Amino acid sequence: MKLQLALDSSNSQEAKHILEKVSDLVDIVEVGTPLIMKEGVKVVTEIKDAHPQLEVLADLKIMDAGDIEARIGFEAGADIVTVLGVAHDVTIHRAVDQARILDKQVMIDLIAVTDVRERIDQLEAISPDYCCVHTAFDLQDRGMDPLREVQLVQSALKRSKMAVAGGINPKILPDIIVYRPAVVIVGGFITNHSEPRRAALEIKELLA
Amino acid sequence: MKLQLALDSSNSQEAKHILEKVSDLVDIVEVGTPLIMKEGVKVVTEIKDAHPQLEVLADLKIMDAGDIEARIGFEAGADIVTVLGVAHDVTIHRAVDQARILDKQVMIDLIAVTDVRERIDQLEAISPDYCCVHTAFDLQDRGMDPLREVQLVQSALKRSKMAVAGGINPKILPDIIVYRPAVVIVGGFITNHSEPRRAALEIKELLA
Repeated sequence: MKLQLALDSSNSQEAKHILEKVSDLVDIVEVGTPLIMKEGVKVVTEIKDAHPQLEVLADLKIMDAGDIEARIGFEAGADIVTVLGVAHDVTIHRAVDQARILDKQVMIDLIAVTDVRERIDQLEAISPDYCCVHTAFDLQDRGMDPLREVQLVQSALKRSKMAVAGGINPKILPDIIVYRPAVVIVGGFITNHSEPRRAALEIKELLA
Repeated sequence: MKLQLALDSSNSQEAKHILEKVSDLVDIVEVGTPLIMKEGVKVVTEIKDAHPQLEVLADLKIMDAGDIEARIGFEAGADIVTVLGVAHDVTIHRAVDQARILDKQVMIDLIAVTDVRERIDQLEAISPDYCCVHTAFDLQDRGMDPLREVQLVQSALKRSKMAVAGGINPKILPDIIVYRPAVVIVGGFITNHSEPRRAALEIKELLA
């Protein structure tokens, strides 16, 4: 199981500062959507240059123009870009085609997909590398339970690997590990912790 | 009817150069998603500073964290930000709330909304300023006809104003005008034209 650190701050200095403290503990570093909106993909380039041993994911949440937008992420140094599962199939196809050409990867974000089982069957035909179960940040504080989704996605996926995101902390993690996701995505528990390294170590221990 | 110029180039110098030539002919200038991915919202700030008389729309295609992401656009100088119609209602609510607080506006992008009529009824309850009928760029060359959607959206909208986008040129525009959209969004026909000003004048004449 890989640990993906989501840098969701909208300040790249702060994000890089946190990453410095935990870079040896994570496998994938995610440059979050707000950070990219604010500063553009140069943040991706800077983080990849500073940490070439890490995989860098650009959370572009691509919805249109799959080839053009995926290329913007990959050319900036991203190893993985995200595409929305609610996008049209052709958009996802074009992003995945770019990934194949450039030997990079695509993670589908399943946020707001209504019929997850049906959609995964359609998505598997396009062969994205990962499908991410994602409880919308905006819904977490309304008591949505991400575990039901995790179970559903795990049973539906055949070829793509599962990533799990959404308010993951050491309390909920053991219940998620049961479903053997390829990637566990942790954001706030590490980045908002008074001691980010201690928080990352705590997660790492559970993943071992 | 307002004319919105979509700057979809991924090079801000080129985009600004085109805008210089036609700024007196357009009402709203859209900073496209690829441009924001590439350079961040500073492009929005630069364009607003250079053309304070124009409304500036940041095509953020917000899908999550509606308040945080809308604020990033508005604080950069955007008058309007886009939120995806396929996003969770709470995400749209939060973006619209930010717009009300800051006296700004939200345009919902209906791309990939499956049941447009049902979704518009739900969206109207949130009172976004605009709903944009948007044929995904990736689908245009597969023979999708945007007009059926325009008709459907126009008949469904009650409070929000309609914007229409997707490969609009002088040939298709007269058929769209029939539905009296509040905003007509034109990109490539102007930006890829050998004489962008002549192209914009041609559109302007049809809107008069």
